[in-house]
Parts: sequence; C-alpha cells; structure tokens
Amino acid sequence: MPLLTRIRGPRDLDRLSLEELDRLAGEIRTFLVDAVSKTGGHLGPNLGVVELTIALHRVFESPKDKVLWDTGHQSYVHKLLTGRQDFSRLKMKGGLSGYPSQAESEHDVIENSHASTVLGWADGLAKANQILDRDDHVVAVIGDGALTGGMAWEALNNIADGDRPLVIVVNDNERSYAPTIGGLANHLATLRTTDGYERFLARGKDLLERTPVVGRPLYETLHGAKKGLKDFIAPQGMFEDLGLKYVGPIDGHDIEALESALARAKRFGGPVIVHCLTEKGRGYQPALQDEADRFHGIGPIHPDTGLPVKVSGADWTSVFGDEMVQLGKEREDIVAITAAMLQPVGLKKFADAFPERIYDVGIAEQHAAVSAAGLAAGGVHPVFAVYATFLNRAFDQVLMDVALHKCGVTFVLDRAGVTGTDGASHNGMWDMSILQVVPGLRLAAPRDADQVRAQLREAVQVEDAPTVVRFSKGAVGPAVPAVGRVGGMDVLRDSGTDTPDVLLVSVGALAPMCLEIATLLDRQGITTTVVDPRWVKPVDEAMAPLAERHRVVVTVEDNSRVGGVGSTIAQALRDAGVDIPLRDFGIPPRFLDHASRAEVMAEIGLTAPDIARQVTGLVSELDGRYGSAASDVDSVEPARD
Amino acid sequence: MPLLTRIRGPRDLDRLSLEELDRLAGEIRTFLVDAVSKTGGHLGPNLGVVELTIALHRVFESPKDKVLWDTGHQSYVHKLLTGRQDFSRLKMKGGLSGYPSQAESEHDVIENSHASTVLGWADGLAKANQILDRDDHVVAVIGDGALTGGMAWEALNNIADGDRPLVIVVNDNERSYAPTIGGLANHLATLRTTDGYERFLARGKDLLERTPVVGRPLYETLHGAKKGLKDFIAPQGMFEDLGLKYVGPIDGHDIEALESALARAKRFGGPVIVHCLTEKGRGYQPALQDEADRFHGIGPIHPDTGLPVKVSGADWTSVFGDEMVQLGKEREDIVAITAAMLQPVGLKKFADAFPERIYDVGIAEQHAAVSAAGLAAGGVHPVFAVYATFLNRAFDQVLMDVALHKCGVTFVLDRAGVTGTDGASHNGMWDMSILQVVPGLRLAAPRDADQVRAQLREAVQVEDAPTVVRFSKGAVGPAVPAVGRVGGMDVLRDSGTDTPDVLLVSVGALAPMCLEIATLLDRQGITTTVVDPRWVKPVDEAMAPLAERHRVVVTVEDNSRVGGVGSTIAQALRDAGVDIPLRDFGIPPRFLDHASRAEVMAEIGLTAPDIARQVTGLVSELDGRYGSAASDVDSVEPARD
Repeated sequence: MPLLTRIRGPRDLDRLSLEELDRLAGEIRTFLVDAVSKTGGHLGPNLGVVELTIALHRVFESPKDKVLWDTGHQSYVHKLLTGRQDFSRLKMKGGLSGYPSQAESEHDVIENSHASTVLGWADGLAKANQILDRDDHVVAVIGDGALTGGMAWEALNNIADGDRPLVIVVNDNERSYAPTIGGLANHLATLRTTDGYERFLARGKDLLERTPVVGRPLYETLHGAKKGLKDFIAPQGMFEDLGLKYVGPIDGHDIEALESALARAKRFGGPVIVHCLTEKGRGYQPALQDEADRFHGIGPIHPDTGLPVKVSGADWTSVFGDEMVQLGKEREDIVAITAAMLQPVGLKKFADAFPERIYDVGIAEQHAAVSAAGLAAGGVHPVFAVYATFLNRAFDQVLMDVALHKCGVTFVLDRAGVTGTDGASHNGMWDMSILQVVPGLRLAAPRDADQVRAQLREAVQVEDAPTVVRFSKGAVGPAVPAVGRVGGMDVLRDSGTDTPDVLLVSVGALAPMCLEIATLLDRQGITTTVVDPRWVKPVDEAMAPLAERHRVVVTVEDNSRVGGVGSTIAQALRDAGVDIPLRDFGIPPRFLDHASRAEVMAEIGLTAPDIARQVTGLVSELDGRYGSAASDVDSVEPARD
Repeated sequence: MPLLTRIRGPRDLDRLSLEELDRLAGEIRTFLVDAVSKTGGHLGPNLGVVELTIALHRVFESPKDKVLWDTGHQSYVHKLLTGRQDFSRLKMKGGLSGYPSQAESEHDVIENSHASTVLGWADGLAKANQILDRDDHVVAVIGDGALTGGMAWEALNNIADGDRPLVIVVNDNERSYAPTIGGLANHLATLRTTDGYERFLARGKDLLERTPVVGRPLYETLHGAKKGLKDFIAPQGMFEDLGLKYVGPIDGHDIEALESALARAKRFGGPVIVHCLTEKGRGYQPALQDEADRFHGIGPIHPDTGLPVKVSGADWTSVFGDEMVQLGKEREDIVAITAAMLQPVGLKKFADAFPERIYDVGIAEQHAAVSAAGLAAGGVHPVFAVYATFLNRAFDQVLMDVALHKCGVTFVLDRAGVTGTDGASHNGMWDMSILQVVPGLRLAAPRDADQVRAQLREAVQVEDAPTVVRFSKGAVGPAVPAVGRVGGMDVLRDSGTDTPDVLLVSVGALAPMCLEIATLLDRQGITTTVVDPRWVKPVDEAMAPLAERHRVVVTVEDNSRVGGVGSTIAQALRDAGVDIPLRDFGIPPRFLDHASRAEVMAEIGLTAPDIARQVTGLVSELDGRYGSAASDVDSVEPARD
C-alpha cells in the first residue's frame, strides 16, 4: 500500500493530487476491511467517512485546529491519517483504542463514546478560543442519529446564539445503528431529496468555485442573492430558523466537493452546518447489503463474506429478548422501548412480533425514561432496554419522573459490569451505585439465564415502582442452582457448619467466581456460606440475621465499589446493629483502560484467588490461626469467567 | 369574590359567559396577588396563565383528558379551578404544594418540578391512549424557556414521528427566569413579530370560525390552500420542518381566541403546537416593571409595592456571588456558566462585571457541563453554578466528559440538602451520593461563609479534575472556627481526653448542630471529637488513623444516607482495617413532603437531640455504663438550624 504507508501525519496529505487522494481512499477501505475483519471493531461507520476524513485533514490543521468526532467509533480513518496504522491489536490490551484517545495522539480530543456530546465540546472549545483570542478552528463531526439526542439540541441552540467560528459536519448516512427515527430524520430526508440537490451537484460546484473568496463571500452572496445561487441550495429549514448557516447536501464521497465546502465553511467566521451524505459500509458489499446493520460493530469476520469467524452461544441479551416475546404474548399491556439500539439490546424479535408495541425513541435515553413514566401512568407496562452505561443519561428521569411518581417501569440494563474492549466509557460500572439512592426502586442482578427470565417476570409484576434487571455482556454461563433460600435470597452454597466463618454475598454473574472463592477458602479451613440476594435493592430483611451468624461478611460485585451493593449491605448491617467486619470487592473508582474482560478483572483484582487471598488474610487476622494461608492461595490458577 | 368561589371544578366554567370569564380572570389575579404576597410562592408565572388555564379547562375534560404542566409552578390557577382555593398555607406543612400533587387532586399528573419533562410525559400518555384504544386527550403546557432543554427536543422529535393526538401549548412569555436565550428564542421571536400575526388576529379568527369543522377541516384547509388562510398564519418554520402542525401565535390573554384555537387543536387528531403569547406578571404592575424577574418566585411581599416583607441577611448564594467577582478580577481565565438562572445562583454581579465571561446556556444542564469540559480543554476555568438537584440532569456529562477527560471544571451546587417548602423535587439530597462514584472528582462542603470563599478558591486551583462546592439554601450562619487541624480536616471541637469515645464527622452547614450534639453527649459523660473534613471526597487520609483513636464514629450529613459521605467514610475505614462501629445520619431514602426546612429535619430525625439520643444508646450498648442516658436527652430542646 504505497500511498497509505507514506502518510505519517495530516500534512502528508497536502502533497497528494486529487487522483492520488481517491486512490488513498481505496487503500484505506481495503486496509479497514482487512484489519477489522481480523480484530473486530466498528467497520460500517468508518467505511462511510473515508473521503470526509481525508478532506477534513486537508482543510483543517490538526492539532492546532480541533477535529472532533462524536461517538468516536468513526475515528479509525482519522487514526490512520494521524500516525496510527498498527491496527493488529485494535481494542486489545496495549493496542489502539476503538475510540479517540488522548494518550495515543495529540490529534485526539474527545474520548467519551456516549453519543451527541460533540457539539457541546465544540461550543466550549470555540468559546475558549474567543476568550483567549485564538484564531484556531473547531470542526465537529456528528451523525444524523446523534442529532436526535437532547444534548445536540441544547448545543445547537447555544451555538446558534453566538457568532463564534465553528463548523458542524452532519454525517448523514440515514441511520445510526438502525434507521434514524423521528421528525428530524424526516426533515433531513427532505433536504436530501429536494431536487435542488441534483442541480447543486451538477452545477453548483462550478458556480461556487467562481464565487470570490475574500471575507465571507459565499454566505454574503447566498444571503444577498434573492435569485441565483440560493436556488441551487436545498431549503435550509429548521437549521436556518435557529440561526445556523447551512451548506449542503454535499456528496460525502467526493473529496473535491467536500474540500470546497469545508474550506468555505472554515473561512465563514461563524457557526455553519455542512450537511454531508455518506454511505455506511461504503465499498464493502456485505455491509451494504445488510439491512440489520450488523457491520456497525463486529467481532472477527471472514472478510470476503462478512460472516462471523465463530458463532457464539446463547448470550444474556438473547435470553432476555426471547423472554420478552413470551411476555408480550401473555400480556397485551407490555410495551418495549429502545434508544436507537433495537438489535443490540435484543428487542428485534419483540418488535417483529408486536410492531405496535415497540418504541424506538432515537438516541434519547432521557425521553425513553420520561415517556416510559407517561406510558406507565397511562396504564401499560414499559420495558426500556439499554446498555447499563447509557442509563446515566436518564438518571434524573428515573428518579424524578419514574420513581417520584411511583410508575411501574422496568429498566433492563445490558452490558452491565466490566465490558472491557470498548474502554472506559462503555463499562457498565455505575448503575448499581447511582440507582441505590432512588427511593422505591428495586434492582435485580440475575446470575444465570434462568434468573434473567424469572427476575424479568418478577420485575414486570411491580406496578408502583421502577424495577431494574441488570446483566452482563456476552455469553451466559451454565445455570447456578440454589441449594436453599433465606428470605428472598438464594443460598448457592451451604457452609456445612453451624458456626461458619464467612458470609459471601455474590452479585449477579459473579456467582461461579464466588463459588470458586468458597472452594479456595475451604482449603484454608475457612467455612463459607455463599448467598445470592437476587434483588440487591432493597437489601433483603434476612440479610442482617444471616450475616450475624458469621464472623465476616464479604461482598463481590461487578460494579464500582463506591456506593455499590457492598456499601449498601454494610449500611443495612450497621442499621441493624450488626457490627461485624465486612469487606466489599468490586471495581475500583477509576476509569478502566480497554482490554479483554478477563484482563481487566485480573488487573483490578476481581478474581477468585485474589479475593480468597484477602479474605484469608482478614480471617487470619481475626483469629491468628491462618498465618500461612496467603502463600498457599498464591499457587491457585487465576479464574477466567 | 362571587364568581371564583362558585367554581368547585372545571365543569363549573361551562356555564359562564365570555364576559363572566373575563371577570373571573380578574378575580383570580386579585386572589393570587393577595394570597401569594402573604405566603410567598410563584407569582409572575401564574399571573401570566390565567386566561390560558381557564380556556384549557373549558375545552378539555380533566381528569379524563390529561392537562399537563411543565415545571408545575404555573399550576396555581389550575388549582383554583379544580377545587383548591385555600392558599393560606401554600408550600407549608399540610398546606397546598407549590406544584401539582397527585395527593391533592385527580386533576394533577406531573409532580416533578425539574423543567422540560412535560412533552415526554405527554408522548407516553398519548402512546398509552393509543395502545389501550382510548379517545382521551392529552394537552401539555410548556414555557418557551423549557423548550431549550434537551428533553423537550427529544420529545418533539418523537411526537412528530407519530400521529397520536396531542396538543402542545407553548406558553411564550419571552423569558424563563431570565430572557430565554439561544437560537430557538430568536426563532420564536420571528414567529411573534411577523406581520402575518397582526393580520391573523384581525381577520383570521373570523375566517377560522367559518371553516367547516367535520373531520380535520382546519388543517386540511390550511394544508390544501396554497393561497388563503395560510397567508394569515405566521411562518411555521422549524416546527413544521419537524412534521408538527403549528397554530399561532395566539393572544394568550384572549379567552375566546384561546378556546377557538384549542378546540380546533383538540379535534385535529394528531400532534399540534399552539403558540400562545402571554405576559408574565400580567395585571400586576410591580411584576411587569421588574426586569430582573424577581416575581418569578417570591417570599412574602407587600402586595401594593411588591417589596419584601423582611429583608434577609447574607445568604450562601451572595457569599459565593461576591467571591466570584473577586476571582474574576484576579484571574482572567475564569468564566461562569448558568442554566437560565443567573440571578438565583448569584452570578448576576459576575455577569455585570465580566459580560464577556458569562454563559447562560438556557435550561440545559447537560450542555452547561459538556461545554464546560470544552472550555476547560480550551484552557480556561469554568465555574458552573446550579441548584444541587438540577445537577442530576448532567450526571453523565460530569462523569464522561469532565472527569474522564480530567477537565478542571468547578461545579457550585446551591440549595444543597433539605430545602423544604418546594417539596420533593427541589431538595438537593442526591449530589453527595451520585458524585461519589465519579473518579478524580473532589467535593467540598463548606460549613460557613469563610469556608465558601476559601474552598471556592481551592476548587478553582484544580486544573486536572472536576471540583464541586456545595452549600445550603438561605441565610448563612455565623462563622464556626476551627480549633485544630488533622490532615486536611478542621477539628471543630477537641474531646479533651486522650481516649475519646466518639468521632463526630460534621458535613457542611450542619457544623453548629454537630457541636450541639457534642455538648449533649458531654452531659452524658461521653467524650466527643468533632471534625469537619472540608473536602468530603476523597476521604482524607488522616480519617482512618483519627477514627481509630475513638470507640465509635458518627457521621452527620444533609444528603441522602444512601451512598453518601457516611457510607464512603465507612468504606475508607473498612479498607484501612479499622473495624469500629460507625453510625451514619442523613436523609432517609424517600421523597420528602413540602414543609419548612426545620420541620423536615425534625421529621426525619436530623436534629441534635435525636442524634445525641441514638449515639448515647450505641455507646451505652458498647460499655453498659449509660443505661439511663436516653431519657435524660429527651428533655433537651430540639435544635433549629
């Protein structure tokens, strides 16, 4: 690949001719299909922005100018053009992040891969430029899907209010994960299909080239001309109503047209929207032919066919999805909500079976939650399925709309706990902490497929409070049977003695690990009861009396240690006057670098041997009997769950 | 007041003539000024919606039809028309809530007084009507200010996507707390000032009256007519671009015009916006003449002059506001952000002194936080001042944009803790819990005015992490001097012994109460150290060694007990292997009814005698020495802070 390998940084693009740039685009596509089919990653979005990224780096001077990517999974081309061409360990420990990363490059700014943030960042950076009297440029790339998020609206409203230079590139591929929904999508469609667009492509470019470029010529011309150029531009509609200049639509695969539009937008000196039409999966037939948009983010695939290298077994998501179809058959009042992720959260089957009872609200978690409150107040039972980390966006609505109004809404949190390869902003490690404060909310952490089904059913029975069912990413393990019950809690392992040492509280998918911890403790002569509370909020009333029969309580959860299940159980014990030592294991309060789930778990000490060692140390402190235990445990192989 | 007193419910309005309705409106205004000047409350917003509320209840059949109020402080007239005319204890314990309340009336739906939620509720209720095949109507009243919130955008986008009957009344008074900002405001202004409006008022009404009303006549007529009626309607612009029918602007003080527009909107059968122009403070000269919008929400006033009955002393807000002006003078890189509450959060003086360094982003807490991240990344230091409870809206942005990117942004949380009279959704009782999980974030709870100034200064020095300074509502108490220092913590009271019983950890404004607790314990022979951590996150490294010198740790905070400062200190002690009993006092995990702050604190047991009694009981359990202590403490007078 002679051209691509010569690009060490954005300025190396300056020397290339238009014909060479097109060749480079082709090389990049080949590289992406080849590399991402080996490692997995976001393929479709990046194939769509090859020419756009080239044009951006030709027109703007990163890193002096800030090139910002919304939901950074569309930044692979940007990485290739800014000195990062080793994709062999993409998203793996020590390899490139799947998103922009300040640690990787001075060309990267936003690491957050929650959607719709880029316009807010851009507004802030543009304001800082103004305050500090810098003439640097800010350009923000946002997909049409991300524009459905409320943050984007708040930002547009503010950007339009100022006159600070800021270029907004709307990367319009007509779908986010799925086809973009809502009134905005219809408006964008109008802009796309207006016949002015065809004429603009055919004739507008020449005309633009001839427009004088001193000062703000394009826009003054447009503004001044009652007839003329304005005729060739599609109706600006709502963007212009807000006070934002609008240019477009531009063919997002025509580098020359893109450069021309971006260069003029850059010179304009105020906020301007450049509307680019791109094709997700461009140049890769399997992606283009796939309506379900499976190539948005993929595991390793065969590059020619696009078929997955390995077919995985049952996963948490599909267990939930199948049970929803059952529930839908049994209860006509159950409806489902997704925030632009019908397929990833497992609601596709439900949508197919009950098309009138599924609501895709766009990338709009706030609206998902508040409209769920309205649905519940109206007499139906909504189930909002969402990645755990994205529920953060709806915290206020869960608290103030759903819980305060005692609405029966069920939240299903997928990808809870350490997810690993997607990095810091995709780990679902916050939900079991922040939801603890929500009065009346009940939270279930099922440990296996049976429990997902059972607890989902219990959740949708609750009509006067929010319920939450949270589970992990990926394959679901084998069933973990209960050997007994205490209160509403499942006993997973009996201590085998009347005076057990340790009460081990296992949360959700960590049950197998907790059983392994118990086995390791057993070898040290430490007797252990393992209990799964099933519903971790509220704390079961049987917890304190059960704990009191033990010498030590240990909690293990796949969530931030801070304010999590362990903390809440500790408080419940204090309130009951049970002042025995407790140790709470969970995710430390820091952002986690991308790596496999197992690698992350090992790094943060959430493994059976690590925990067994610490518990052994604690018990030995308590009675001085197990002085040599720690070194024995060292020899045990690390757990991989 | 012969007319108003005859209105027991909405249907009593049906009998009144247009002339009588106008008289009723006048009576209601007199009633509101009289009643609210005695009790305090939201005056301006309610004076603006008198005719609108009458028209709504004439056209719609509440409670079968749902009449929904955004930011429910504009619901006083609605209360008067739905059987609630005793305003003598407005916002007081046992009296009417200042917001809609399901406990008060079947006519009330949304109790949440955070802004911009109503369209989401309406969308949910309309969806439920469709699912359950009901022909009930949903009408949502939202101010122009609340439309700047992202939730409103998300909802509009979804409402436009469906064809469910739903009437959106935009109550446009050109300002929320302050003049509404942003591109949307400019667009609304265009709609207001278009000359089509004048013609519409003059001639449109007659024409509308003559339009046949079978089916969807008005809109079909409008839609079909290339010339004709459409000419008299203002340009619809962005709303119609989104696919929403738009009617307006309507004179919001002309009951006949309002009824006509609402009746047609009701019959339309799909989503429609009715744009009403109202005057905040209508009919009350002091409110109309006040540019600072002081009459939005007031304490007791003299009704003739509008001047406050009592002038309060220095409050937390003004201490902060004055110090910001000082900081602004000293550091040119400090900028300030407000979410449509310049005056209430104390930033007016800063804005006057440094107009180029203040950003009012509208009711848009998400944008406030994410644009602050951008500002910090761009090299300035933003201070975002906001009511504590409203920060919930920006949790994801604090975590994923500010903290993940290590941005030096200072959040100043006003009205933290129990605020009382505004009810459940205004208490700032969540921040010290949910912010605990944010990696790197530092949180200060100043105990007096000196500490507000000092800790604000410390906060803005931090350039690589979010900092938070949170303080209470209302008057700030006298200075509470430190008598010593341990690590970074202030010792407020030395135990006077080498073997003290209790370490009492005092958080923020509760310092005087904690000193009183110590005095009460002293009388029982219990020796107590009182320490103020100042920075409650992270937990000071000196905390565990200090705690270890005591027999019991007690924490007292004005925040939810769940996951709060006490919980975090308990975890820090566990981590350090300090397994002594701890008791954490704070707000119980439930929503609090409106009442004065002192009444709420007494009800939840956050008083010196209550806490002293419980601590005495604990210590007596520990050593069997203080069996009779509890009854002695009973005689102590309750604290009032």
